[in-house]
Amino acid sequence: MKICMYGAQGHIHTVLDYLEQTDDAAVTAICCEPGEDIVWLKERLAQVNQFVRVYGDYHGMLGRENPDIVIVSSFPDQNAGAARHALSQNIHVFCEKPVAITMAQFERLSQTLKESGAKLYTMLTERFKPAFYTAYRAAEDGLAGTIRLVDARKSYKLGIRPDYYKSRETYAGTLSWVGIHAIDRIYRASGKKFQTVFARSSNGFNRGLGDLETTAVCCYEMEDGVLAAFTCDYYRPAAAETHGDDRLRIVGTHGVIEVMGGEARYLHDGGSEVLPLLELPLIFEEFLWYIRTGESAHLTTEDCMYTTYAALKTMESSDTGTAVSL
Amino acid sequence: MKICMYGAQGHIHTVLDYLEQTDDAAVTAICCEPGEDIVWLKERLAQVNQFVRVYGDYHGMLGRENPDIVIVSSFPDQNAGAARHALSQNIHVFCEKPVAITMAQFERLSQTLKESGAKLYTMLTERFKPAFYTAYRAAEDGLAGTIRLVDARKSYKLGIRPDYYKSRETYAGTLSWVGIHAIDRIYRASGKKFQTVFARSSNGFNRGLGDLETTAVCCYEMEDGVLAAFTCDYYRPAAAETHGDDRLRIVGTHGVIEVMGGEARYLHDGGSEVLPLLELPLIFEEFLWYIRTGESAHLTTEDCMYTTYAALKTMESSDTGTAVSL
Repeated sequence: MKICMYGAQGHIHTVLDYLEQTDDAAVTAICCEPGEDIVWLKERLAQVNQFVRVYGDYHGMLGRENPDIVIVSSFPDQNAGAARHALSQNIHVFCEKPVAITMAQFERLSQTLKESGAKLYTMLTERFKPAFYTAYRAAEDGLAGTIRLVDARKSYKLGIRPDYYKSRETYAGTLSWVGIHAIDRIYRASGKKFQTVFARSSNGFNRGLGDLETTAVCCYEMEDGVLAAFTCDYYRPAAAETHGDDRLRIVGTHGVIEVMGGEARYLHDGGSEVLPLLELPLIFEEFLWYIRTGESAHLTTEDCMYTTYAALKTMESSDTGTAVSL
Repeated sequence: MKICMYGAQGHIHTVLDYLEQTDDAAVTAICCEPGEDIVWLKERLAQVNQFVRVYGDYHGMLGRENPDIVIVSSFPDQNAGAARHALSQNIHVFCEKPVAITMAQFERLSQTLKESGAKLYTMLTERFKPAFYTAYRAAEDGLAGTIRLVDARKSYKLGIRPDYYKSRETYAGTLSWVGIHAIDRIYRASGKKFQTVFARSSNGFNRGLGDLETTAVCCYEMEDGVLAAFTCDYYRPAAAETHGDDRLRIVGTHGVIEVMGGEARYLHDGGSEVLPLLELPLIFEEFLWYIRTGESAHLTTEDCMYTTYAALKTMESSDTGTAVSL
């Protein structure tokens, strides 16, 4: 597989991690927007034995290189257009989430996807973390009975953020940049579509980061009366062991499955136990498999588009202060 | 202090626990509604050296006994009227929560309270649990900085429930019967009033219990942009160590305080620690102090009425499926 990379933001380490352990994919070229550190990216790729050409123009790069896959991970407002351009040429796209930061971008992208023979993954990296996967599989195997409630937590360290986080024009908004992981957890764990969302967020006390929302809360009503909620914040103390305090709780008629601290615990009528963690591929490895076979046990283009849609609707509720139907 | 008791439901053990360790209060009489186990109550009182007269009529009991305090803990739909009757005679009322199950009951009760010289406590027993109290005090002492987000969990074992749980006419509804504890936690922890609520609940898969909602989710926007959320369910497995999985998380600009498993943990930029638990009086002991001095460090009549109001507005949101202003 021949790969080009556009942008040096976000979760591109998920691609680098895979390249480090395989020789069935090669990055031939990279391109960044002004303000991105392309030197770092080129050197980082060299460390995993990928020696690349550098382009100053994204469209030119795709035209000259004609790759199988493009990694799109530029500034949040650039990604939707870049993804569309590639998909319209039947180039598969592995894109930072959210792939669209406005509903207009989302709708244009949906149309392009319909007409494209290529596949899209967004970097829903948490689907591929063993503790979450173990919980999803346990729920699918019926360990909790019928699932009735799902709740989740996203709590991140704020740290130092580049300037593009300061404006909603260039940053997706915390509910779709961070919250989308929780939205995906709820969707994946419940297997239900969202019907109604109510969300609120606040950019108070954000250490001078403009529009950036430091806190958010959401409630969902889903198909079949399943309920869900999550909270999201940027106040995880710097000294905490991990960047994120990522939690998930799946409540069913016959048990509760809870992910916390990288463990999945199962509480049931017979007692409580930590579930043995299940292994799964890296997200980029799965994407290559999905491209080759058209099948994925872990993530599909439709999943990626649906969670993007749900994140945008969640933002809409937060922006308008009203409950929004999906 | 001379005490009468009306009803044998709910948290009356909080009174019995206090009577067991004191002789400055005496129960002189009890009265129950048909369908309540008055024999059990009389015998249980005898165990704590309270030998009581039994009445068949609540109004008659108050008229004959003229107590200082009445414990109101009958069926949920009976409590508001009983509380009003006592307050109108300047008898202090220690009442199961929620003291009102409809807004009409609440408004009549508010009016009666304005005209009464007596005080009211509702059985917000969780305010008096050391782990929560320790968290509240830590937040008040500024350990978390400025509080921006509060979230909570109520998860109970369903067990066997009397028939009155099956109808909203006789059961307050899960959001106000169970959820009120989480509402009080959010109010107490943040020190902010509620401005907007959105809530959903479901009575699905409730093991034949009619209207009883087995799951609920709520989001709140509070004063000064503080956000809050909680989930509530009756699916805690029977084998779990405790009846309730009661949690609270207070997120501030400089730290996070989290209550879980009866511990209060403080996470901050310097690390993480379990806070030493602070002691506080029993709720009924505090009520006697409040009556005598007019001052309370832990709970006031206004707090009890405000959390009742917030619970009813939360129910209204859940019932209508719309965001509701408070």
